[in-house]
Amino acid sequence: MGRFMKRYSAPGSVPGSFAERAPEGPCAALEVILYSPEAYRRFEIPSLDKLPDPKPGTVTWLNVAGLDGAVLEQLTSRFGIHPLVMEDVVNLGQRPKVEAYDGYLFVVLDLVTWNEEALHVEREQVSLLLLEGLVISIQERPGDVFDPVRERISSARGRIRTVGADYLLYALIDAAVDHLFPVLESVGDQIEDLEDELVEEPSREHVATLHAIKRDLLSLRRSTWPLREMTSRLARGENAAFAADTVPYLRDVADHAVQVLDVLESFRDVVSGLMDLYLSSVSNRMNEVMKVLTIIATIFIPLGFIAGLYGMNFNPAVSPYNMPELGWRYGYPFALAVMATVAGVMVFYFSRRKWL
Amino acid sequence: MGRFMKRYSAPGSVPGSFAERAPEGPCAALEVILYSPEAYRRFEIPSLDKLPDPKPGTVTWLNVAGLDGAVLEQLTSRFGIHPLVMEDVVNLGQRPKVEAYDGYLFVVLDLVTWNEEALHVEREQVSLLLLEGLVISIQERPGDVFDPVRERISSARGRIRTVGADYLLYALIDAAVDHLFPVLESVGDQIEDLEDELVEEPSREHVATLHAIKRDLLSLRRSTWPLREMTSRLARGENAAFAADTVPYLRDVADHAVQVLDVLESFRDVVSGLMDLYLSSVSNRMNEVMKVLTIIATIFIPLGFIAGLYGMNFNPAVSPYNMPELGWRYGYPFALAVMATVAGVMVFYFSRRKWL
Amino acid sequence: MGRFMKRYSAPGSVPGSFAERAPEGPCAALEVILYSPEAYRRFEIPSLDKLPDPKPGTVTWLNVAGLDGAVLEQLTSRFGIHPLVMEDVVNLGQRPKVEAYDGYLFVVLDLVTWNEEALHVEREQVSLLLLEGLVISIQERPGDVFDPVRERISSARGRIRTVGADYLLYALIDAAVDHLFPVLESVGDQIEDLEDELVEEPSREHVATLHAIKRDLLSLRRSTWPLREMTSRLARGENAAFAADTVPYLRDVADHAVQVLDVLESFRDVVSGLMDLYLSSVSNRMNEVMKVLTIIATIFIPLGFIAGLYGMNFNPAVSPYNMPELGWRYGYPFALAVMATVAGVMVFYFSRRKWL
Amino acid sequence: MGRFMKRYSAPGSVPGSFAERAPEGPCAALEVILYSPEAYRRFEIPSLDKLPDPKPGTVTWLNVAGLDGAVLEQLTSRFGIHPLVMEDVVNLGQRPKVEAYDGYLFVVLDLVTWNEEALHVEREQVSLLLLEGLVISIQERPGDVFDPVRERISSARGRIRTVGADYLLYALIDAAVDHLFPVLESVGDQIEDLEDELVEEPSREHVATLHAIKRDLLSLRRSTWPLREMTSRLARGENAAFAADTVPYLRDVADHAVQVLDVLESFRDVVSGLMDLYLSSVSNRMNEVMKVLTIIATIFIPLGFIAGLYGMNFNPAVSPYNMPELGWRYGYPFALAVMATVAGVMVFYFSRRKWL
Amino acid sequence: MGRFMKRYSAPGSVPGSFAERAPEGPCAALEVILYSPEAYRRFEIPSLDKLPDPKPGTVTWLNVAGLDGAVLEQLTSRFGIHPLVMEDVVNLGQRPKVEAYDGYLFVVLDLVTWNEEALHVEREQVSLLLLEGLVISIQERPGDVFDPVRERISSARGRIRTVGADYLLYALIDAAVDHLFPVLESVGDQIEDLEDELVEEPSREHVATLHAIKRDLLSLRRSTWPLREMTSRLARGENAAFAADTVPYLRDVADHAVQVLDVLESFRDVVSGLMDLYLSSVSNRMNEVMKVLTIIATIFIPLGFIAGLYGMNFNPAVSPYNMPELGWRYGYPFALAVMATVAGVMVFYFSRRKWL
Repeated sequence: MGRFMKRYSAPGSVPGSFAERAPEGPCAALEVILYSPEAYRRFEIPSLDKLPDPKPGTVTWLNVAGLDGAVLEQLTSRFGIHPLVMEDVVNLGQRPKVEAYDGYLFVVLDLVTWNEEALHVEREQVSLLLLEGLVISIQERPGDVFDPVRERISSARGRIRTVGADYLLYALIDAAVDHLFPVLESVGDQIEDLEDELVEEPSREHVATLHAIKRDLLSLRRSTWPLREMTSRLARGENAAFAADTVPYLRDVADHAVQVLDVLESFRDVVSGLMDLYLSSVSNRMNEVMKVLTIIATIFIPLGFIAGLYGMNFNPAVSPYNMPELGWRYGYPFALAVMATVAGVMVFYFSRRKWL
Repeated sequence: MGRFMKRYSAPGSVPGSFAERAPEGPCAALEVILYSPEAYRRFEIPSLDKLPDPKPGTVTWLNVAGLDGAVLEQLTSRFGIHPLVMEDVVNLGQRPKVEAYDGYLFVVLDLVTWNEEALHVEREQVSLLLLEGLVISIQERPGDVFDPVRERISSARGRIRTVGADYLLYALIDAAVDHLFPVLESVGDQIEDLEDELVEEPSREHVATLHAIKRDLLSLRRSTWPLREMTSRLARGENAAFAADTVPYLRDVADHAVQVLDVLESFRDVVSGLMDLYLSSVSNRMNEVMKVLTIIATIFIPLGFIAGLYGMNFNPAVSPYNMPELGWRYGYPFALAVMATVAGVMVFYFSRRKWL
Repeated sequence: MGRFMKRYSAPGSVPGSFAERAPEGPCAALEVILYSPEAYRRFEIPSLDKLPDPKPGTVTWLNVAGLDGAVLEQLTSRFGIHPLVMEDVVNLGQRPKVEAYDGYLFVVLDLVTWNEEALHVEREQVSLLLLEGLVISIQERPGDVFDPVRERISSARGRIRTVGADYLLYALIDAAVDHLFPVLESVGDQIEDLEDELVEEPSREHVATLHAIKRDLLSLRRSTWPLREMTSRLARGENAAFAADTVPYLRDVADHAVQVLDVLESFRDVVSGLMDLYLSSVSNRMNEVMKVLTIIATIFIPLGFIAGLYGMNFNPAVSPYNMPELGWRYGYPFALAVMATVAGVMVFYFSRRKWL
Repeated sequence: MGRFMKRYSAPGSVPGSFAERAPEGPCAALEVILYSPEAYRRFEIPSLDKLPDPKPGTVTWLNVAGLDGAVLEQLTSRFGIHPLVMEDVVNLGQRPKVEAYDGYLFVVLDLVTWNEEALHVEREQVSLLLLEGLVISIQERPGDVFDPVRERISSARGRIRTVGADYLLYALIDAAVDHLFPVLESVGDQIEDLEDELVEEPSREHVATLHAIKRDLLSLRRSTWPLREMTSRLARGENAAFAADTVPYLRDVADHAVQVLDVLESFRDVVSGLMDLYLSSVSNRMNEVMKVLTIIATIFIPLGFIAGLYGMNFNPAVSPYNMPELGWRYGYPFALAVMATVAGVMVFYFSRRKWL
Repeated sequence: MGRFMKRYSAPGSVPGSFAERAPEGPCAALEVILYSPEAYRRFEIPSLDKLPDPKPGTVTWLNVAGLDGAVLEQLTSRFGIHPLVMEDVVNLGQRPKVEAYDGYLFVVLDLVTWNEEALHVEREQVSLLLLEGLVISIQERPGDVFDPVRERISSARGRIRTVGADYLLYALIDAAVDHLFPVLESVGDQIEDLEDELVEEPSREHVATLHAIKRDLLSLRRSTWPLREMTSRLARGENAAFAADTVPYLRDVADHAVQVLDVLESFRDVVSGLMDLYLSSVSNRMNEVMKVLTIIATIFIPLGFIAGLYGMNFNPAVSPYNMPELGWRYGYPFALAVMATVAGVMVFYFSRRKWL
């Protein structure tokens, strides 16, 4: 159930006390990308002190990989970030949201990836801060889905180099949202495979897989609903942080979020139908087994009775009423004929009622 | 699951990069229909360069059949279409929507058809652009449901020749929406047939058919909900692109979309009831089989026991207590009578409890 | 499924082309009722030409029974009705709705009746037009639920003769809505009967009846939801066509529509509970059968085994170890006693576990 | 189903025609309570003529027990009540509602009581009219839940004697709403009892009880939803009929209505879980029976086969291959040992697979 | 069902009559914490008379543990609290809510704790009053989740000592809301444990546990929904009682409430899936048992029949047609071979159909 919980500060603790919450571990890696229409520079910095001051006309993207208490504290003091914001950065498992503060915008998102080996969905929280000419992205650990954006900046493809930091923020959100499509495709493939197997040969493992897929969908849905809400709020263009010609792009992101949700809902409906399919498939097989077996038993029970009848030891010598059949010339063939007749009648009756 | 997914550009790629997404294939066929109250001309053009400039008083309808990257790029540059629009044109599987841009209106719709052979519903995306005196329709492949509209234009039936391009756009949307009714009728017929068969003789194939119908309904619903939303937004008449006397027609389209949705919801309810009907039908048949068979077995088991009893080999010669019945004069008839009595009592008991 | 579909014009045909859609058949019957506080006249007219022009202070009610293309066309041209309205009149199966046009109001309603023989609900569309001093009602076929209104007009009961055409429209809507109550009562009686039978002796026919009732409720619900919406919109009193002192009456109609919907929802809940009741009733009976029968079988199988044991032919003459019981003096009584003991123990065990 | 229906006037009859709808029976009992901060008088009047005219500073409460056509007509004419209001008074089964008319306020409520003998919920409609200095309450029959209010007036407890008629109306509504709590408590006790019995020993009667409780909840819910709506509308304080310092009290009533609904929803959820509990309890018991019985049968069937084998009559005298075992010295013990071994192996196998 | 009910005053009693409702018991314990940026004092007072008057610049927190009628009455009179508020304090089981009165704010909350022994959720109502420089918290009994807040005040950690009473109120609400996270974690662990056990070895106790968890979730949900509503209303910042820089903190609390609800909904979905898992697990086991057992029975029944056949006593001496096999040289081996063949064919058939 862990994946449905979020991390939380101790109840009653000082709000905004993020520093002690930051997990111990290797220091965060700080990567800086500086660009303007003409210039582009990418480098790592050992600590936040080395971060150059933003210059007009230049966009700075600071990527912090790792939740390092010291770095977060420096961010807080240098850029005047509210401690509650940093608490949200550290308490992983936040719902995607946008919060406007004086002078900066705070965005929390999920990076969703498909774990090819475990065949399930994984979520990583990424926090984005948009300041004047500066975007700060804070991730739990190194590795993300932003490489195409980095590549677009370095190769100056598209308009990214010619526009401001708000467009960079959009590009990051867009990359995160669009990455949901291949994940959905993988889940869809898994559902399709499961469906084929279910119809062919239903087994217990399929129920477990179904259960796991349901959870994946639940977990995806949980991060996509607020995503939709959040992107559609951005797309309404009320946020002063975004330039007017970025708004159609935000609308596009919101549209994609709706489409993701649409696909998710369809998957949910299909998956809940699969449980029915499984159950009816299992019960069909069971019924088939039971029916054939019961019919065999039923046919042989009367025959067995007849055999038992003539196995009785009444003494024919004592009286002519005692099992005279045993002494008939054609007694045995007669008994066999009776059995064959009974069996034949039952088979006929069963097949006429379509039980065979 | 493919039909629930939409095509998507690589996550993180430059937004509006549609050209490389267009599938390779034969060039798009470009058909032009030019009309005014007095004139009418229909012809094909080899490339977009040959498209005559729109003249006042004349409506131009350009139909592009096939997603040809080059043609789309020409459209973009000649009419100043936003690249995100073209990306939507190319990434098939969009939700139906209307987007107003400066100087043009962008409409995405589904053309839904009934595949008579595979007995399922098929969707094709059609993108419509309304510019000044010009309607551009872009389809995935040749063949559509717009022939009656073409025929109305050529034969000047109704008011279509006397009014503007906005009415043409309406006529196309109307044709697409109204085409849902025969599709619904086909689905309804399929449901009815299934229902009759289900009650008569439920089989596993029916579950598969039910499953397929459910998906069809799901898929129809997915494209009809946004259709309703979109048409009712148009019908509110807030869009300057439509003349005032086109609004009642848009209201009519919106009304039809609601009716389609209504029918769909009724079908969904009926179909979900069918699963219950199937299950209760199957379990009824199974119960019937089990009951009759079990009763036969139950009657013969005590009889078999009695027969077995008198098949025991206790030596009557040793003592008078050992199976004296075997030596009775009427021992055998007596045993038969006991069996008949037992069987009779059981049959009577079973039939009084209505188990037979 | 037919009852969930509406009739539709050929997709892509000229909107408002109703004339060719009108079913061929006998001409429509045109009945006119003219009344003022002092005067009252009721007569039939052979064609629309004979309809007297409305006079101030007099209300004219024209009832058209039958969808006669010629008559509808005359209505269109004489009163300037929009062709889309007439298309809705002809395409039966519309959702109940109110549409305000310049100079007239268009209302579509369902007349719902209970078919006493087939035990199901039937719907007939009635279209109402409110013009200046004139109400036109168009029905599919003769026969309706408006006779009490006619009687109130002729006998001048209530205020109907003293007020305008808007009150007449109200009276017709009210009669249609209130007629839902006896229909609901009939459905309720049917549900009650079914429930009693279900508990007493569940059978397959009950499932079919349940299914039919569900459809009736579905169909009723489908026409009542938009009815509620429509009446509550009228009751808000925004419509200039209605005099201020008619509004409390409209509010009353809206209230009744809500009550109908309330009852419908309760019925739906009850009916969906009935399916559970049926299933648990059937499975209870089945369990009972299976339990008793299995217990009989189970008791006799060990007994049969013992009988079989002493039916073995091991030769006691060969050795003293071979079935010495057969030669015992009390061998047979002993065997019977063993059987009785086994049966007794099992019966005791079964009854202690409450399986009997 | 009767309790879900409301009484209705004949469809198409004159709206507001209540007089003939009033059930025949004994005349209504008219009780009057007159009070001011200093004075208090309670008396019965034979007819409405005797009702003293309201005096400033004095509140009159007229309680009409019984739907007497003549009395209602007098009320209508003396206080100018709209006939539609009186129709609602007479057509029992109304949804709780508040309607503001010129000069008076009309409130319909349900008095819900718990029938201790039949163990179900009963509803009685009470209609309240608030005029200047006068509250009229009209009930179906004598006997109500207002005695504590009467007692507060007579003993001048609380502020009721010092404030106006609007507070009296509030006090009556409050008494009716608060009376739902003990009813809910009784229903809750019934659910709890049922639950305990269900787990211990599920039987068919429990399904019927469950069904009855569901209906009670359905019926309660149906009268509580509009109650909530109505009280929260009153609590918004928009109604001029209520003094400003009565509003916190109305807010309290609305709060209670929400709490009632909350409890109802919880009960519904619990009750729908009970059906699952019952089914799983029944199927558990059934499975247990079937399993033990089937296992007994299964163990004895192979044993019976072996016994049957040595009951065959092949003639050992003819050849040494014919059942030589029958002539073995230890043939019989050997056969018994084989049987014991087979039974032992099966018991071991079954218990290892946890089937025993 | 007790936990879903709230305590209620006798219907019709004087509203706001709380004194007699207060449970008898030991007197309430009154704890006072007085603090300002520089000073801090914590002490108990025997009665409310000893409560020092609030001084500007100093915040007073009065914690009342125990519902003592006398103390509540003193609170009412000394601070002018509305009697309806005190009635809510006493009638435990209120929905969480905020109510603004003239001069004070009234907040009702649930303190939810996890009972480690009984493994279920417990709720305790806490009522909070915010006056000028004074917060009064009233609890049912001693012991709460506010110790970390007390500790923050005494040690002056965070900003709590430097800000007003509104921040103290926030801190108490925050502590209560955040305490839901560890409770959720415990519930989540319980669900996870149950799930593991369910798959391994489903038993009846699991159904009871599932039922109990469902109730816990129901009960949690019932107190969290209004909590969310209430906190988000506070977070909108419309309440003058809160300073502007407390609003981001309130927004944080609202955010946490939404997250709690999110987790709850996920849990609900997972738990409802567990019931399916249980049922399919049970029916899988049952099917397995039935299948193996039925197959054993089915194989041996035909064999038993053959054995019975040759146990018949037809007299071979009478005619050559009577069971000549009995006299064959290889009769017995032949019969055994037939049996082995029949068994082999059946096993082969069963395994080919994958029934084994």
